[in-house]
Amino acid sequence: MSEPITAEEARRLEDLYGPLTNSVRTLIDSAIRSQADESDVLQAHSLIDQAVRLLSSRLDPEPFGVRSTTEGGILTWGNVAMGVRNAIAFPLNITHDENGRASADLLLASAYEGPPDHVHGGVCALILDHVLGATAHRPGRPALTGTLNLRYVAPTPLGKVRAEAWVESETESKTIAVGELRDSRGALTVQAEGIFIRPKAKV
Amino acid sequence: MSEPITAEEARRLEDLYGPLTNSVRTLIDSAIRSQADESDVLQAHSLIDQAVRLLSSRLDPEPFGVRSTTEGGILTWGNVAMGVRNAIAFPLNITHDENGRASADLLLASAYEGPPDHVHGGVCALILDHVLGATAHRPGRPALTGTLNLRYVAPTPLGKVRAEAWVESETESKTIAVGELRDSRGALTVQAEGIFIRPKAKV
Repeated sequence: MSEPITAEEARRLEDLYGPLTNSVRTLIDSAIRSQADESDVLQAHSLIDQAVRLLSSRLDPEPFGVRSTTEGGILTWGNVAMGVRNAIAFPLNITHDENGRASADLLLASAYEGPPDHVHGGVCALILDHVLGATAHRPGRPALTGTLNLRYVAPTPLGKVRAEAWVESETESKTIAVGELRDSRGALTVQAEGIFIRPKAKV
Repeated sequence: MSEPITAEEARRLEDLYGPLTNSVRTLIDSAIRSQADESDVLQAHSLIDQAVRLLSSRLDPEPFGVRSTTEGGILTWGNVAMGVRNAIAFPLNITHDENGRASADLLLASAYEGPPDHVHGGVCALILDHVLGATAHRPGRPALTGTLNLRYVAPTPLGKVRAEAWVESETESKTIAVGELRDSRGALTVQAEGIFIRPKAKV
């Protein structure tokens, strides 16, 4: 577990690694769709290995986890769904309206493909797990998924999608949330219901 | 839709892009855990952008999809769970035993993190969707997820995991499959049940 950093230092690191991570996202896509000459691919490979060596000159032995700033900010930069330093992350930017409804707009390109031209069903599950879970988090008490039930109404085309979730019912330790995924034309593609558990706060 | 390529050309491309994709996987991890000096990070960023330019000198405008070789082989290189050209993919290598049981062993590092030191619940869902679905595919008739129900029994620590799935019951068009995810010590972490639909074969 790393020591907390100041909010200013967090901003500096986010400005440094955020754009780098965006470039890695573009690289992931290029590696899938490239039809370049063999010599160009080999040279690209060598450049990537050089970049890895530079970044690995000092490497945290631990996964990023959840870190805090000295001002109480929470950093989830390594998170696979929303981390600004994780190139796998879409990243998911969740907004909450005044009724606690959580939503996120995403652009899903080639790298999230399952069936041809469509989003992998498991990626739909990842998005919905995260957005439904977001209705259940409380300050200092992140919720864990207990159950998640998904109904695939129609295939989800690659492109723009929107996920929404809201609370169905709630107790002190448990939130039942429901939600849905819609494609770029607003058509429903996946419905979800989940139970999210809040472990007791540490005293 | 690209023209089929020969099996020999497919091998050449796999030998070219497979190792490059592995380097991108290492890069994703390094971008999360790097604590390098700012000048090294900036230089790495510039190398990544150069690699993107080389790979993008000729770029397929379409997602990879599912392609075939002239010998009838199937290429799913862009698939987010199993694609050899998709750096997001673990990749999932599924083996089938004589009873149709599907299984996969994976090593999940920092890039698949949700809760600190643990696999994101949505990544567990992605793995199980894919492995359960693998019990339902038939030659030329890939199955689509109809429903997927997940029960999270315990958090899944990052590291080695094993997923298994088997058929519970089956009709001509539909397979009900069940499966589970276990951590490196063999402890059950997630249970899954899903209905997978095989669209009618094209005539």
